[in-house]
Amino acid sequence: MKIGLLGFGVVGRGVYEITAARDDMQVAKVLCLEDIQLPDAEVTRDFQSILTDDSIDTVVEAMGGLHPAYEFVRGALEAGKNIITSNKALVATFYDELIPLAQSKGLAFRCTAAVGGGIGWLSELERVRRVETVSMVGGIMNGTCNYILDSMTRLGLDYAEALSQAQALGYAERNPSTDVDGIDTWHKLILSANIAFGVSLDRDAVPAAGISKISAADVSNFKEHGLTCKLVSTGTQADGVYSAYVQPTLYPQGALEAAVPTNFNLITLDGEVSGRQSFYGQGAGRYPTAYNVVQDCVSQLAGKKFYCAYGEKVNVDNSVKLTYYVRGASDAWLEANTAETWDGAVITAPVAVADMHAWLKNNPEAFIAAIAE
Amino acid sequence: MKIGLLGFGVVGRGVYEITAARDDMQVAKVLCLEDIQLPDAEVTRDFQSILTDDSIDTVVEAMGGLHPAYEFVRGALEAGKNIITSNKALVATFYDELIPLAQSKGLAFRCTAAVGGGIGWLSELERVRRVETVSMVGGIMNGTCNYILDSMTRLGLDYAEALSQAQALGYAERNPSTDVDGIDTWHKLILSANIAFGVSLDRDAVPAAGISKISAADVSNFKEHGLTCKLVSTGTQADGVYSAYVQPTLYPQGALEAAVPTNFNLITLDGEVSGRQSFYGQGAGRYPTAYNVVQDCVSQLAGKKFYCAYGEKVNVDNSVKLTYYVRGASDAWLEANTAETWDGAVITAPVAVADMHAWLKNNPEAFIAAIAE
Repeated sequence: MKIGLLGFGVVGRGVYEITAARDDMQVAKVLCLEDIQLPDAEVTRDFQSILTDDSIDTVVEAMGGLHPAYEFVRGALEAGKNIITSNKALVATFYDELIPLAQSKGLAFRCTAAVGGGIGWLSELERVRRVETVSMVGGIMNGTCNYILDSMTRLGLDYAEALSQAQALGYAERNPSTDVDGIDTWHKLILSANIAFGVSLDRDAVPAAGISKISAADVSNFKEHGLTCKLVSTGTQADGVYSAYVQPTLYPQGALEAAVPTNFNLITLDGEVSGRQSFYGQGAGRYPTAYNVVQDCVSQLAGKKFYCAYGEKVNVDNSVKLTYYVRGASDAWLEANTAETWDGAVITAPVAVADMHAWLKNNPEAFIAAIAE
Repeated sequence: MKIGLLGFGVVGRGVYEITAARDDMQVAKVLCLEDIQLPDAEVTRDFQSILTDDSIDTVVEAMGGLHPAYEFVRGALEAGKNIITSNKALVATFYDELIPLAQSKGLAFRCTAAVGGGIGWLSELERVRRVETVSMVGGIMNGTCNYILDSMTRLGLDYAEALSQAQALGYAERNPSTDVDGIDTWHKLILSANIAFGVSLDRDAVPAAGISKISAADVSNFKEHGLTCKLVSTGTQADGVYSAYVQPTLYPQGALEAAVPTNFNLITLDGEVSGRQSFYGQGAGRYPTAYNVVQDCVSQLAGKKFYCAYGEKVNVDNSVKLTYYVRGASDAWLEANTAETWDGAVITAPVAVADMHAWLKNNPEAFIAAIAE
């Protein structure tokens, strides 16, 4: 396998290092705008030099971002090259275009590192689907949010302190919105649910609530009620009805989710015959992420292409009712749905997930968290 | 794939049901001493009728026990048939004979359901080994012990009550020794370590301490110190030195292990590049176990044989020092190694795992538990 590697940042460099020790694959060219030299690979600033190199059969995209990653990946597929990427935003956003294109050309398109970093989550979904159907996927998919929430819970920090500590440690970006607003988790949920259920979810109908409005007072409030807050994704299917959403969720202390520390992930599926299975590990970082990129290269060599057959677009129905903790805003709807209060915060009667998220859109200063059942 | 199914108990019946819905495999004959009739398979009391049936390419062994499972499996391999089994005792005990025999004949030998039931643990080790080396395997591998310890911890039951509840629910056998004395976990550890490290551990040097001497007073003692007891296996490798043991282990409340409820398993590996990964799920039960048997059939169809190349026998060195909780016996050695006491129980200074287990052999009424680091 001859690889054209796009990007030589955290993940790209890790892929280069791991593949350097192998004899079944070789990074032949690296697209990188910086002035570096590599012993075993040609460094180029020109994507065309990779695109037109017929000896390169596989493009590993490790640039991140939507553009020009999208143009490069699309071009590589059109030129007959296999794609391996860790770019969840790219795959979730252009799912309906890139997956059918790869499948129509008989090319591999793999993205295991895009969800769960070092966890073999998407590849396990691929295995699970050989024998059973999956009724639920989801869990803690963003290490940055878990780090912030864990610091607030264990150390009693407020949100701003926990965020700046995460930034100092390199766990959070200077502009943390993609993580803390739930967008990264949203991409990972869409990708997981599409593959687990063999469909393409209507993304616009999948809501995401983030953690940026949580306060130390909320965390004390949760503790007093024996609860721990995590940012969690949920995707379900039953009888052709699909539900999917991202939201802070409160677990009883003692639940597996509540025990997930620092920047780790815990991702869960519910299988028709195997039951509940959860996968715990490093959701990000150079080597864990590069590890699954290289795993995908090995899988491709073994003839594995995508994880499932591309499935048609399906609607999302979030009419399922949950109980929520709400603080920071009020109106007639919330008052009508208030079951009790915890130190000024509202605990709702069961309300539809879609309704709660619609309310949050109109009350963006509020913090909401579902109470796990 | 034409299957000869040995045994029609809990697991065998599950395999029959799951395969009945597939068109890539078929249970052609079932070895069963009871008088049953099946719509799609011939039932026989005579193993020879399976052995000499050339249309049967794969034998699924779901009888359990060492004999005649061993004779049947060995005979089937010699007759050129692939083997799929969930029998951990069989594979761990005859590892040095059956694996080389299967490999010399180019036959598949798979046993994913033997460790972790419905968790794809051994198949994940197979995947991990494609890219990295593993330095540690282990965890909570026995649902019966976890159920008993969890009941004692959450409900305050004493050992006898928790055991008889587990027996009433079908989680424990009438003679529970294989589970509560750590033998089942010991088999699973040996199998996991052999595959993860690509060796054959010297089984006689792998000690197992069980849970049958634990009391409600011990559990209260642990709670007072913020600890939760689990039966845990550990296998490590570093620089060609291998360590392996099974023992009750005390985790801080809040640790992932401490949160594993009822009869679930949590199995962990530490990978050179992927870091720590843990796998949580149903470690036993008809459908979870049968699920991974069928997964192995699918893997075999895809050309996957065993999980690793058979590796030569290696010594086990348990000189690593740990701190232990000890109650129920005393002597000069224990007194010399006492660091403190908790309500009459000894907390040792760090002592070698091998020494602690040797002491336990001479003091079989004692209960020991390592304190996790």
